[in-house]
Amino acid sequence: MNTDILRTVSVSPRPADRAPPAVILAAGAGMRLREGNGGRPKPLTELLGLSLLERSILSCRAAGVDECYVVVGYAQERIVHLIGELEARHGISITVVRNPNWETGNGSSALAAVSHLTGPFLLLMCDHVFDPAILRLLMAATDGSDCCLLAVDRHTDSVLDLADATKVRLDGRSITAIGKELAPFDGVDTGLFLCSQALLDALEKASGSDKRSLTRAIRHLIQERKIRAVDVGRRFWVDVDTPESLSHARRVLLANLAKPSEDGFVARWLNRRVSLRLSSYLASTRLSPGAITLASFLIALSGAFLFAVGSYLWTLLAGLLVQFASIVDGCDGEIARLKFQTSRFGAWADTMLDRYADVAVVAGISLGHWQTHPTAFTLLGAILALTGFILASYTKKEYALRYGSEPPSGRLARLSKRDVRLFVLFAGALLNRPFEAMILVGAVSHLAVGMHFLTASRRDRRLGKA
Amino acid sequence: MNTDILRTVSVSPRPADRAPPAVILAAGAGMRLREGNGGRPKPLTELLGLSLLERSILSCRAAGVDECYVVVGYAQERIVHLIGELEARHGISITVVRNPNWETGNGSSALAAVSHLTGPFLLLMCDHVFDPAILRLLMAATDGSDCCLLAVDRHTDSVLDLADATKVRLDGRSITAIGKELAPFDGVDTGLFLCSQALLDALEKASGSDKRSLTRAIRHLIQERKIRAVDVGRRFWVDVDTPESLSHARRVLLANLAKPSEDGFVARWLNRRVSLRLSSYLASTRLSPGAITLASFLIALSGAFLFAVGSYLWTLLAGLLVQFASIVDGCDGEIARLKFQTSRFGAWADTMLDRYADVAVVAGISLGHWQTHPTAFTLLGAILALTGFILASYTKKEYALRYGSEPPSGRLARLSKRDVRLFVLFAGALLNRPFEAMILVGAVSHLAVGMHFLTASRRDRRLGKA
Repeated sequence: MNTDILRTVSVSPRPADRAPPAVILAAGAGMRLREGNGGRPKPLTELLGLSLLERSILSCRAAGVDECYVVVGYAQERIVHLIGELEARHGISITVVRNPNWETGNGSSALAAVSHLTGPFLLLMCDHVFDPAILRLLMAATDGSDCCLLAVDRHTDSVLDLADATKVRLDGRSITAIGKELAPFDGVDTGLFLCSQALLDALEKASGSDKRSLTRAIRHLIQERKIRAVDVGRRFWVDVDTPESLSHARRVLLANLAKPSEDGFVARWLNRRVSLRLSSYLASTRLSPGAITLASFLIALSGAFLFAVGSYLWTLLAGLLVQFASIVDGCDGEIARLKFQTSRFGAWADTMLDRYADVAVVAGISLGHWQTHPTAFTLLGAILALTGFILASYTKKEYALRYGSEPPSGRLARLSKRDVRLFVLFAGALLNRPFEAMILVGAVSHLAVGMHFLTASRRDRRLGKA
Repeated sequence: MNTDILRTVSVSPRPADRAPPAVILAAGAGMRLREGNGGRPKPLTELLGLSLLERSILSCRAAGVDECYVVVGYAQERIVHLIGELEARHGISITVVRNPNWETGNGSSALAAVSHLTGPFLLLMCDHVFDPAILRLLMAATDGSDCCLLAVDRHTDSVLDLADATKVRLDGRSITAIGKELAPFDGVDTGLFLCSQALLDALEKASGSDKRSLTRAIRHLIQERKIRAVDVGRRFWVDVDTPESLSHARRVLLANLAKPSEDGFVARWLNRRVSLRLSSYLASTRLSPGAITLASFLIALSGAFLFAVGSYLWTLLAGLLVQFASIVDGCDGEIARLKFQTSRFGAWADTMLDRYADVAVVAGISLGHWQTHPTAFTLLGAILALTGFILASYTKKEYALRYGSEPPSGRLARLSKRDVRLFVLFAGALLNRPFEAMILVGAVSHLAVGMHFLTASRRDRRLGKA
């Protein structure tokens, strides 16, 4: 861990494509939150498996920022201890900046960090939970001038405690006024900045009173026309000040875990509703996404085994297990995205175990059907379904490899997705007709393969003529 | 078709990344070749399904060149007629340049074309068969100066009629002498140039005698130090002057169709030897690569059907058909590469039909086994083999998608390739044990899947530590 010794940043100039460093303010007392928090300092407040400070730091890393300065004041020893743990756990380097004057306001904390930096930097509050994409928006909006950028949310209807929020008035992209009591206003200050050294001057000039607040410094920047707004669109952010806003942040984070573009009908209307609840519980455990992937696989395997037994009760239980495996299959990705643990290999392991789980389920259902129908049709049915299941996925990979994009998602393609497939098997088990259900989804999968194929053929013919 | 009216190339300047135009000399009489050629003009000489002129033009297009000038002289009406056909067939635009002085030598033909051009251009002879990669080498070697580039082959042992070849002497990349009688020499003139306007001056100066030859112009360029050599390495090229060199070109083209990096053991030692012979015959027919893909699929399907019948004689025939399908499966790609008919969709159709052919063969073998072993083990064996076959290929796609490169090719991976798989099924059919052979390759395929998976896991762990 680096301590608060001035680092000679200017010795090795930053390459142009490297993200600027981030300054995270974690010095305040956060009294309003402490009631529902067991007296813990605010940066250490737990939210879905991560402390607020850890989430801030990992959000920065997710946006490509690899250099963090954390300003501490209140309860600094406990926070510095946590930072040491975070450095070891994530293999990142964090510079601690101690602000002895933290009680005079967040402006003094920003000032304490600014003196360590020479170029532009991101500025954020550790009690703000946000979509890392907002940091990327700020970085993309820089024009090399010494203008500061403030991420502004214009969808003020979705702000939890609008009365307590800092509002801004806008003229195009220019900010013309800021304050909590501002009326009328055009948007809300999200607390995420990309700052130039102009902020340093503004902070120093804003020392008229004992209290140094960031808002006061921003007023100076507005006067000098050195601050612009960057619209965050519908990207989420929550200012966590109270137990209510902590619950709100929890809901917002969970709601942003679904993948509307990838989820099939069943995932959207059933699986996500259950898996998100499950994930919100699992997040606070030490279970890794990989362990959850494996658990989903083993649940599907148990279902496959029970399908092979053949009697209705076991079939019913098998169907339930397979549908449950399908739900749990959503949790690994949710936990990984929630706790910044996504990995290329994890995604691959998930895909491969899904395929093998499908193979086991087809084998189980076919063996169960065999008990009463030991004919060649059972064999052919198993082959039809199995190849449909695997080739539906295979075709999409092949399309992506050859065309560099996902195949267009028609109704047939969405019907051949795994969530739908396993749900139909579950429904088939309820009706004691799992084999017939398997043949049905197998056939639909083959149709989806044919459709992807036709799409590609048409696409190439169109390109050929163009 | 454009005629020989001067085109105003300079009106729209060429973008920097666009390939230069190509000038193809097709004006000579080619008397030495006509004996074995039914008196056809040389550019119309047939070689593996394409005339020499068509192959030159398509080689240029394969190298990214989309603007061609063809200089005609001898038998020009027949050649102009062919060019009209080529423009319609391939949807490309070719400018015909008529050279009334073609009998005074290839220098006069080059001069006739040069007056149509303002910037650098590729210069080639229509009777040279070559790897299009050589043109890309020439284009990559330009440095923006007005120096000409000559592609030179330093592996003179592989030149067919070395006595008749034009030799060059080199000093590093500089050409210091050129001529048929040169001794000692360092390489051979391949007849492929990237020329600047310096060639125009050299051609005009080289008009001392009635004969204008390119070699004489190159001597001028050498004197003025305006020509450099580009080493073609092991890339193929053949100067087609005689019936012997035409046969040689045929052998060289066929030998360059194999894919050493992709072919499995059986493809390399058996299938390619047969499929190349078959392709050399099929090339002169009108069969498209797609039709051959379909033929291979139908042959495999017939094999699958016969496997299902079950008696030894049918099984033997089925094994032969499946191995024959595996051989024909090489021909579609060979014909496509030979006749410049490769397409993204064609490659995809090949892959998908291969998968479905495998499914059919597994179904056929399993049904055949069923006649004597109607047990659940037959069902499980079919599932094991089928998933192994498909997932071995699936895993490679998934790896390529996630890591942007093919997975490393170990022995296990090569044993799970389709050529090996189908050969083992053929061998199993010979021994009247197709089901057991299928279980064997199915198991090997699953091992290969596991190995790819471990490789990826290790790779990610290594990267994570780096």
